[in-house]
Amino acid sequence: MHADIRPFEEIRMLFANLPTPSEESVAAVRARDAQLTKPPGALGRLEEIIEWLAAWQGRAEPAIERPLVAVFAANHGVVAQGVSAFPASVTEQMVANFTGGGAAINQICKAHGVGLKVYELALERPTQDFTQAPAMDEREAAATFAYGTAAIEDGVDLLAPGEMGIGNTTVAAAIYTALYGGPASRWTGRGTGVDDTGLARKNAAIEAALKLHGPHLSDPFEIMRRLGGREIAAMMGAITAARLNRIPVVLDGYVVCAAAALLHAITPDAIAHCVAGHVSAEGAHADVLERLGKKPLLDLGMRLGEGSGAGLAIAIIKTALACHRDMATFESAGVSGKAS
Amino acid sequence: MHADIRPFEEIRMLFANLPTPSEESVAAVRARDAQLTKPPGALGRLEEIIEWLAAWQGRAEPAIERPLVAVFAANHGVVAQGVSAFPASVTEQMVANFTGGGAAINQICKAHGVGLKVYELALERPTQDFTQAPAMDEREAAATFAYGTAAIEDGVDLLAPGEMGIGNTTVAAAIYTALYGGPASRWTGRGTGVDDTGLARKNAAIEAALKLHGPHLSDPFEIMRRLGGREIAAMMGAITAARLNRIPVVLDGYVVCAAAALLHAITPDAIAHCVAGHVSAEGAHADVLERLGKKPLLDLGMRLGEGSGAGLAIAIIKTALACHRDMATFESAGVSGKAS
Repeated sequence: MHADIRPFEEIRMLFANLPTPSEESVAAVRARDAQLTKPPGALGRLEEIIEWLAAWQGRAEPAIERPLVAVFAANHGVVAQGVSAFPASVTEQMVANFTGGGAAINQICKAHGVGLKVYELALERPTQDFTQAPAMDEREAAATFAYGTAAIEDGVDLLAPGEMGIGNTTVAAAIYTALYGGPASRWTGRGTGVDDTGLARKNAAIEAALKLHGPHLSDPFEIMRRLGGREIAAMMGAITAARLNRIPVVLDGYVVCAAAALLHAITPDAIAHCVAGHVSAEGAHADVLERLGKKPLLDLGMRLGEGSGAGLAIAIIKTALACHRDMATFESAGVSGKAS
Repeated sequence: MHADIRPFEEIRMLFANLPTPSEESVAAVRARDAQLTKPPGALGRLEEIIEWLAAWQGRAEPAIERPLVAVFAANHGVVAQGVSAFPASVTEQMVANFTGGGAAINQICKAHGVGLKVYELALERPTQDFTQAPAMDEREAAATFAYGTAAIEDGVDLLAPGEMGIGNTTVAAAIYTALYGGPASRWTGRGTGVDDTGLARKNAAIEAALKLHGPHLSDPFEIMRRLGGREIAAMMGAITAARLNRIPVVLDGYVVCAAAALLHAITPDAIAHCVAGHVSAEGAHADVLERLGKKPLLDLGMRLGEGSGAGLAIAIIKTALACHRDMATFESAGVSGKAS
């Protein structure tokens, strides 16, 4: 990092030269698809997925050998405003549950051969309460973004960022309100299950934050550090690092998409390598996906976080690849083509 | 079979005493679900699936040890009317492809530990062209229904009927038109990929059949034998046998649902043990599912048949079960419950 450049400026430069999709690889998988023993287009989005994998991996024979769900865990000062149904201590308890193999995401990853890593982001030191001050200073936000890039190490070839953090649906809703306009109630949901009073506190906290930080919220990086938690910053880093290394990304739900939405606000191209794994039942996630131009693979009423929706979507993506790679061709199977 | 009872009357009696869902089993899985380390309801339809499995298996601890995709293959006289983009010989060629492991359904089943069996239904002897005569006589239709019940042998605990049969989207569309009203074009799609002329022939064939058989189409069994192919009759048998043996059923797409729709017309309760695996891109499948009161698990633009959508849905169902069975409880993981 150059001493004369502010941290965010250094990150901003990453978006000037993003890798582009490989048209040759897409052409190659299309040519193979046309020979497979099925009517053209009959596998629908399973065929689109292969083109997406090929485009972003830049491989005529896309592969998923090391898919990873990378769960970023963080604590949030805004929990002091009574915005969650669960106490902040649950974040750390759930991290222990991930480590012990007891959470939903553990079962999902195990069932489908997906790796799982958990990144703790200074849980003992929550960010500032954003109703009172910026959640992070610029240096910390940038360092957390940089830390998130570690998720792509060890040859990961498909990445699904996930998150755990009591209070972080409030954080995500604040980001959506800042990006897309209020009132806050347009974006919020009940998270882990707040009652009407809790939901009112959630909306009030966001409105207070917007009032406090309003003049600074035209810049996605300022939204990130003022409203965002550490998992948001880290996931922005992870998604960006994936792009720079030609690793396709599967987006999870409401909170993960707040990181994606900030990247999209920097430049829509920043998330062109991302597919929406599912649409969450939390808040206005469907509306968010529409703004991001992403059609979800799954719609199962899930709203758990942890990367659970994306992890399940990886099962679909791996199956699409198995079909593309292992199906017989009309010629090899001795099947007649179309009569016309 | 009693000599003095007509075959359909014998089958009709099966629907008089269908097993009912087990409320105790549902209560048991709900009680466990409430203890799992997640907010209540956060897994959405994955939780509903467990209740459905428990209800129909009648087990407080539902299990999926032997899931099966049972593909019924048949040939159809109506192909003579030029309703398909592929020649009828492809049915047998695709059966060989299933046996050789080269079809999409082979890859899907292999990826998710699902068994696959293929039942050939006298491919060398297509049913009658339904524009000229009933497709089958009553005795053959009833025998084929009975043959389909074999799909539940060998301890199958989750069944997904699938099908292969050049011309059978025309058969399914004819059934929907007979059940729900015309014109035929309201129900038809392009199947394996007919052009506009082929689609017009498809609609014309159905309209001709409705004119020929019209007076007899108030009875679902008559629709089955006059318009249905053998795979329709066999799948009706398979779905019914599953119900009688407390085996939950995952419905595939456009053609499988024609068998389900006929059962539903006999009595809606006949398919209460069925979940819709996916909504197909073929014809008016979404409308059919709505009439059957089924919300699909997947919506991926697939329209292949073979049981492919249902097979993929089984991956979701198995994952739901893994979560329910293997997740830690709040107590075992030392996670705090809701604050309120």
